Amino acid sequence: MIGCIGFDADDTLWQNEQFFRGAEARFAALLGGDPGLTERLHAAERRNLGHYGFGIKGFTLSMIETAIEATEGRVPASVIAKILAEGREMLRHPVHLLPDVAEVLGQLARTHRLVVITKGDLLDQERKLAASGLGDLFHGVEIVSDKTPETYARAFARHGAGAEGAMMVGNSLKSDVIPALQAGAWGVHIPHDLTWSYEQAEPPVHAPRFRAIDRLAELPALLEGLAHHNR
Amino acid sequence: MIGCIGFDADDTLWQNEQFFRGAEARFAALLGGDPGLTERLHAAERRNLGHYGFGIKGFTLSMIETAIEATEGRVPASVIAKILAEGREMLRHPVHLLPDVAEVLGQLARTHRLVVITKGDLLDQERKLAASGLGDLFHGVEIVSDKTPETYARAFARHGAGAEGAMMVGNSLKSDVIPALQAGAWGVHIPHDLTWSYEQAEPPVHAPRFRAIDRLAELPALLEGLAHHNR
Repeated sequence: MIGCIGFDADDTLWQNEQFFRGAEARFAALLGGDPGLTERLHAAERRNLGHYGFGIKGFTLSMIETAIEATEGRVPASVIAKILAEGREMLRHPVHLLPDVAEVLGQLARTHRLVVITKGDLLDQERKLAASGLGDLFHGVEIVSDKTPETYARAFARHGAGAEGAMMVGNSLKSDVIPALQAGAWGVHIPHDLTWSYEQAEPPVHAPRFRAIDRLAELPALLEGLAHHNR
Repeated sequence: MIGCIGFDADDTLWQNEQFFRGAEARFAALLGGDPGLTERLHAAERRNLGHYGFGIKGFTLSMIETAIEATEGRVPASVIAKILAEGREMLRHPVHLLPDVAEVLGQLARTHRLVVITKGDLLDQERKLAASGLGDLFHGVEIVSDKTPETYARAFARHGAGAEGAMMVGNSLKSDVIPALQAGAWGVHIPHDLTWSYEQAEPPVHAPRFRAIDRLAELPALLEGLAHHNR
């Protein structure tokens, strides 16, 4: 009954937030270790989401804005140049798959239609997918500006038989699980140690199609259990 | 025989380059009117395309980089703040449709499947499409990181019966016309007064499926002529 499985990419298939945390730490050090700086940066990111959307380019612009504000305009151009270099470095970061990803997806691709559904900068997400070596396992790749119930309804209609017969898997309750449930799909949460504060939400424990597992390796058994239950 | 028509968006459906030219002029004025500045900026944009891809966020980052380089690191943070504000302003610019767009697309949508195929930042292109009021005329919207023959083959397979029965219309010979012809589609060039130097190329005058028209209003007659010819 579940024919199509959507996977979030960042921190579901491969490491992502750790590169942002590293950049944030180096950014704070560059600015002399101002203790409130990371919080100011997160506030700038949230404020700018409506303009920049998600991704490293907007993050870099928000770092520059925060550096200017936090120093009341005294930050030297040499520091701005280092922030630009940090952003370019992030856009080259290597792709580290999370545990069991290649095995589990290789197995599931034989029985299900797999789709990547991810936010972020278009070119950067394409680069990471190419570097991941997973490209051939996916029936489709949807890089989207935001993840709403309509995003999932559209993606599962395009690549499967609609949200009713689909499941979304990801580390963000707010972006991956809750809107997919609202669209009528199954929503499976696999927590990641590092999750951006913006992506946090209360678990939808009363939704009948909500499931949480600790590791991706548990997904095939979960799918089997659901198929058995529905026979 | 032509069932699906792809349209470029920026400077084909609505004004775009004029906003970049305005930003470039204000950027040069901010930096004290350095005569070689615009050329330096274009060089930075080209150099950064592989990292940033197309769109306003990358353009803003390239303006900041150019300001630092051109002043040998002496640009004050207050000027960088103005560049950031310029970038945000561009991401809010109004959408001005080009002449005849609404009428011609309204007419063609009754007989053909219309698709937007555009580069740029995901969120920004979605915003412009929503503001254009044209959204309902399109069977699909493809926002892509680059325009290659494969881009067109994929888009026309997804939204029509393949490139063979499709036509691409746009103001860029390099991005809209030549790769669409290489994919096997028709390629129609409608020049725009302002075209970014990166997008210029020699007209493929010997390609049998290449056509050039002066205004979008000539497109319905061109399509009719092709249909008649093939009867």
